[in-house]
Amino acid sequence: MISDAAFPAEPWRVRETRLDPGSLPQTESIFALSNGHIGWRGNLDEGEPHGIPGSYLNGVYEERPLPWAERGYGDPESGETMINITNGKLIRLLVDDEPFDVRYGVLRAHERVLDFRAGTLDRRAEWTTPAGITVRVTSRRLVSFTQRAVAAIEYAVRPLDGPARVAVQSELVTNEQLPRLSGDPRLSEVIENPLRHEENEAREGRATLIHRTRSSKLRVAVAMDHTVKCPGARQYTESRHDLARVSVSAVLEPGETLRLVKFVGFGWSSVRSLPALRDQVEGAVMIAARTGWQGLLAEQRAYLDDFWDRADVALEGDDEMQQAVRFALFHVLQAGARAEEQAIPAKGLTGNGYDGHAFWDSETFVLPVLTHTLPAATAAALGWRHKTLRLAQDRARELGLTGAAFPWRTIAGKECSGYWPAGTAAFHVNADIADAVIRYVDATCDQEFAAGKGVDLLVNTARLWHSLGHMDPGGNFRIDGVTGPDEYSALADNNTYTNLMAQQNLRAAAEAVRRHPERAGDLATGEHEAAAWLAAADAMVIPWDDKLGVHPQAEGFTQHQEWDFAGTGPDKYPLLLHFPYFDLYRKQVVKQADLVLAMLMCPDAFTSEQKARNFAYYERLTVRDSSLSAAVQSVIAAETGHLELAYDYLAESALMDLEDLRNDTRNGLHIAALAGTWIALVQGLGGMRHRGGVLSFAPRLPGALTMLSFTVTVRGRRLRVQVGKNQATYRLPEGSGPLDIRHHGTPVTVRAGHPQTMPIPPLPARPRPGQPPGREPVKRQERGG
Amino acid sequence: MISDAAFPAEPWRVRETRLDPGSLPQTESIFALSNGHIGWRGNLDEGEPHGIPGSYLNGVYEERPLPWAERGYGDPESGETMINITNGKLIRLLVDDEPFDVRYGVLRAHERVLDFRAGTLDRRAEWTTPAGITVRVTSRRLVSFTQRAVAAIEYAVRPLDGPARVAVQSELVTNEQLPRLSGDPRLSEVIENPLRHEENEAREGRATLIHRTRSSKLRVAVAMDHTVKCPGARQYTESRHDLARVSVSAVLEPGETLRLVKFVGFGWSSVRSLPALRDQVEGAVMIAARTGWQGLLAEQRAYLDDFWDRADVALEGDDEMQQAVRFALFHVLQAGARAEEQAIPAKGLTGNGYDGHAFWDSETFVLPVLTHTLPAATAAALGWRHKTLRLAQDRARELGLTGAAFPWRTIAGKECSGYWPAGTAAFHVNADIADAVIRYVDATCDQEFAAGKGVDLLVNTARLWHSLGHMDPGGNFRIDGVTGPDEYSALADNNTYTNLMAQQNLRAAAEAVRRHPERAGDLATGEHEAAAWLAAADAMVIPWDDKLGVHPQAEGFTQHQEWDFAGTGPDKYPLLLHFPYFDLYRKQVVKQADLVLAMLMCPDAFTSEQKARNFAYYERLTVRDSSLSAAVQSVIAAETGHLELAYDYLAESALMDLEDLRNDTRNGLHIAALAGTWIALVQGLGGMRHRGGVLSFAPRLPGALTMLSFTVTVRGRRLRVQVGKNQATYRLPEGSGPLDIRHHGTPVTVRAGHPQTMPIPPLPARPRPGQPPGREPVKRQERGG
Repeated sequence: MISDAAFPAEPWRVRETRLDPGSLPQTESIFALSNGHIGWRGNLDEGEPHGIPGSYLNGVYEERPLPWAERGYGDPESGETMINITNGKLIRLLVDDEPFDVRYGVLRAHERVLDFRAGTLDRRAEWTTPAGITVRVTSRRLVSFTQRAVAAIEYAVRPLDGPARVAVQSELVTNEQLPRLSGDPRLSEVIENPLRHEENEAREGRATLIHRTRSSKLRVAVAMDHTVKCPGARQYTESRHDLARVSVSAVLEPGETLRLVKFVGFGWSSVRSLPALRDQVEGAVMIAARTGWQGLLAEQRAYLDDFWDRADVALEGDDEMQQAVRFALFHVLQAGARAEEQAIPAKGLTGNGYDGHAFWDSETFVLPVLTHTLPAATAAALGWRHKTLRLAQDRARELGLTGAAFPWRTIAGKECSGYWPAGTAAFHVNADIADAVIRYVDATCDQEFAAGKGVDLLVNTARLWHSLGHMDPGGNFRIDGVTGPDEYSALADNNTYTNLMAQQNLRAAAEAVRRHPERAGDLATGEHEAAAWLAAADAMVIPWDDKLGVHPQAEGFTQHQEWDFAGTGPDKYPLLLHFPYFDLYRKQVVKQADLVLAMLMCPDAFTSEQKARNFAYYERLTVRDSSLSAAVQSVIAAETGHLELAYDYLAESALMDLEDLRNDTRNGLHIAALAGTWIALVQGLGGMRHRGGVLSFAPRLPGALTMLSFTVTVRGRRLRVQVGKNQATYRLPEGSGPLDIRHHGTPVTVRAGHPQTMPIPPLPARPRPGQPPGREPVKRQERGG
Repeated sequence: MISDAAFPAEPWRVRETRLDPGSLPQTESIFALSNGHIGWRGNLDEGEPHGIPGSYLNGVYEERPLPWAERGYGDPESGETMINITNGKLIRLLVDDEPFDVRYGVLRAHERVLDFRAGTLDRRAEWTTPAGITVRVTSRRLVSFTQRAVAAIEYAVRPLDGPARVAVQSELVTNEQLPRLSGDPRLSEVIENPLRHEENEAREGRATLIHRTRSSKLRVAVAMDHTVKCPGARQYTESRHDLARVSVSAVLEPGETLRLVKFVGFGWSSVRSLPALRDQVEGAVMIAARTGWQGLLAEQRAYLDDFWDRADVALEGDDEMQQAVRFALFHVLQAGARAEEQAIPAKGLTGNGYDGHAFWDSETFVLPVLTHTLPAATAAALGWRHKTLRLAQDRARELGLTGAAFPWRTIAGKECSGYWPAGTAAFHVNADIADAVIRYVDATCDQEFAAGKGVDLLVNTARLWHSLGHMDPGGNFRIDGVTGPDEYSALADNNTYTNLMAQQNLRAAAEAVRRHPERAGDLATGEHEAAAWLAAADAMVIPWDDKLGVHPQAEGFTQHQEWDFAGTGPDKYPLLLHFPYFDLYRKQVVKQADLVLAMLMCPDAFTSEQKARNFAYYERLTVRDSSLSAAVQSVIAAETGHLELAYDYLAESALMDLEDLRNDTRNGLHIAALAGTWIALVQGLGGMRHRGGVLSFAPRLPGALTMLSFTVTVRGRRLRVQVGKNQATYRLPEGSGPLDIRHHGTPVTVRAGHPQTMPIPPLPARPRPGQPPGREPVKRQERGG
């Protein structure tokens, strides 16, 4: 846990006011910088002490054999693990004969600031060496949003009270020694020395290291260049197999400063030659150096100004939540901004949890945010899925199915799941991808995408569903033996979420075939196959428990024994670490929103009354052992009129990492939960839905908030929504075309320059649904909001 | 496959008339000798060529870590693998300067005979060395039923057409090099050099080697002694860490014979000291040597004469089947005779398939045979389960259950399954153990067992079921999310077999508590808990599909898609090697009798009409990818009036290994399928059932047979049943008390000396049920019967 008082509630930044070495593993994740291509954990410049050193390049992994006690047909033989690449962050400092190390001497002051508008991580330290010399060290780093291959650091040191001999060593280090992790399956496999040397070069402040992974055969190149400002400094540049170093030494009088800017360029490829890759990274560094440090800072600020103009969510009444929301949006942006046809991993590039794999989190939690804030990033992320379509088709064939079976977890597109009941069997990932396609096309009207990759993805996933399900003799289309979102159930017949999402997928594919007959022809499909999809969709089994008046999560679910919540102590959570899967699967206990997620994703499949009853039923069973759950529960709590509960869940999702609520922030941030913060605000409190081309809102504020405003990008327009206690205002900036929306069911046309203010209907009081004992969300006011 | 003509159809032996080195892996299994404690594969005396060298001691295993791609709570960290212990069979021969090796020179004749009445494996070879000297080599070996720790070999060599210098080297060899096996999960893990030297001794024809396993810490001692008869022979004895050797050399004239008898003693312990174990095996050898070779032969014959008097099944009209039936009974005897509180592994001690593990096969297939032929062996086998009760209780607690959860696969009692959906989730093993207890007590009236270990086993398994199931709000007792016998389904709700067997278990436990209140008191149980068991049993859910008029194998099963049998080519079987489990689980396809097994084990739970409809329904879906299936299908085929089909299935079970029908006899014999041969004959064609103290028969012969007779031991009496085409005769030997039985429903009292002959009612013709295309059993007449 990170102590409550760690970060003052400031609206546009996270500021750490003193250094707690014990919290470094967590703060390295929180202060991570990334543009979706390069990821730098917030390690101290001097490298040590550290929790987990982390430098990542999206898509760079090593293969490792997956071990099996009893391997079955279709179980993957090897998996992919994201590796720690060459560390370009390292800048070591010697003051006289003492290395700058916060564990020694006296750290008089230490502050780190992650600035959401500048897109930088700043550090300011005052340190007295064991020998009594005091220096001020300042650094600022960025991973550039505008120059995708580039990161840079400005580093300065100044003696405060006497002269000092200083040496600054700016390095590239490959194959850093990594701490051993525990056996927790949610963590990562550590691969020792993953990179084999290919080339090292160094000359006059510039150096390049080129390596290659042993098994996955990916080539990784890292180059650096420096500008140094310091009277009388001497400089020396060298390189070895796993090290490049630029050393600068000077004798500084008090007040004199040694200032160094380090430009680092990264590149990797599975196909490009060594000279080509070397030139690529050295060229990137050359452009960055020419742009200069101030130029990079200015570009970064401009990029973020535009982002916040599209995406900001402002609220009044809860400063901590305000900070948390922007922190969340900033990290979602960092995870997805420049991924560009690579995956968006569950942890972004902030840590190596889950082996650096991407899951359905990406489509279901991250893309809804990007679709309405940075739509091009969504197109790129779906482009990654499209790029791996061939692998998914191979996998479907291997499984005896048609179309495409996308992997449950992966880096490069191959199934890497080591446990098929909660991996391969969770076929809903395919409908989740289709949903992201539908949502993106709805929100952007990107016809080129819709007519190309969109058709390919919809048709291939629809084919999967059609081959996975079957029409029973009674004319019902059943999807048996699959696993839905709730990982405390598995291999159930007719999971309601899966069936509803598959139904949408089948219908959308049929519609895509109708609209784009030429592309459909390329895929050897047409009206005939589309008719079969529609017939399956129309006959889809949607389980219903008439006795209880609720939708079972899957057939038979509501007949299962209820988990003994009263007999389960708080030390037994998460349940999966204390109980066998067999026991979890066969009882009514829900790890994460499943049927409740269906009500968010397929709102039209449920009446309001059903939503209220279902929500109350599943609240009693849901333990939230997954970080994906709180945001979804928040949305449906809001929809069913439980605004305070919605706000409590929102806080849990928003503070997941800033307060390290799951005690695993050290392994990387929960990008989906951070994205869920936006979902809980915009889809929950804002009540936004976008179905069949209709954008609707049903905003309502909980007691703690006096104002909530957010901007969503819809079909090229930036719609600003401002919600007060009693009314909401919708506005479009000058130059936008008009937009038809709904406000609490009422049609409204919003025109540029003509804000529309609508009253918020009163909410009837309803009793707050209960949760399993001990698993109630912390009340926001008790959390300190 | 072993060629059809390999073994002439002789009633009391299996005779191989020529040596086919390519068939050695299979014939080593077929010619294996065992007493349930020691197992010797039928390796050639000289050791090479070989398929798999195999010497086993029941209970001797090594631990190995079980690898997991994603380990879940409750997945075992380590497994147990039976190891190849010190080889005491080896006798090498040098003729002049040529080692006797059938791959060189000319093998003029070679015969091996497994004799079911003598209990020996004989070998007779005539071999001409590459240098042109011809010798006759004869050997006979036995693993003693009467001296449990002892095996012995008589070995003789005689030059036929000229003088020869011969050397015979009789050895003990530890840590033999083993062939690498493939990745087939049904095979065994090879552990290299499993035994660490502790002591070796040798003196004047006697030698002892003592070793210990590294991780499981089991001490293994093997001793040998020899008697040599040969004019002018010289003898030399030596030992090293992994070798002991007695070398005998002589110059033989034509007609002169070097004859050697080797006595080998085996022992192991997890607790006894080295000196104690050394003395134990050396003492065993001393007694064996004093008994002498002829004495051992005589004891062996007497033991088997008694066994065949109790157990023989004779039939007329099918000589090959006659041989196969006795082969089957002989090997079942070998597997179980002297196991004595060790497990009866799936392969007996004939090979290392399935890692040498025991499964439910033991209770459900092997013990019904032993219970009616060698009841003491059943008591000993259940004694093994009882010995592991503490481990099973620990496992239940680990799984959050009460009572005992016996392992799915094990050697020493710990769960070794590497795939829980088809391992731990197959809880029916516990009801199978209870069933074996009930069956044994019914058949023997062994009150000491019933009042002691019987109560312990019944109560602990009943507690398991009571904690595993739950009473739903409608008052039905449900057992959700478990796996039944059919391994092509998993984690289903209310598997009919499991629920019926659990129901029987609960009732039997309640009855045991009523009968043995004192022992029940020791277990802290009594009428109150028993009443809860009875309530659960009475409320047990038994699924029924009213539309189809059949019992679903589990809830929902009959709603699943039918497997595409027409589209599945013959090269795709067994399905588990060609399709993912997820696909098998979610469709109607049955690996092995499940609902059909329920009809055998719980015959009173089904009407005759239901049995006929159920059998026809599941026949269409059952692919028999398990060797456990054919015998069960045979029984129900016979009961439902399909005698020719019953006979076809009987032949499949009986010839499983003699014809290597599953192409894996090399890994050891299918002891359960061999036991199934008896089950198919006695419970199938003989129609024997033993329920609630009532022994009933409903015999009927298929066209091929003119007579079937068998003997079953019931409550100390040897009841002989002789079945002809139109009548059956029941007789008891002199001195037996009277026995009440039923013949085709008619009560009959059989008295000693007064055979009862009863007519067999005619059988109405019914259409033969169909099987999946390509999976029909071979018709017996086409197989060459």
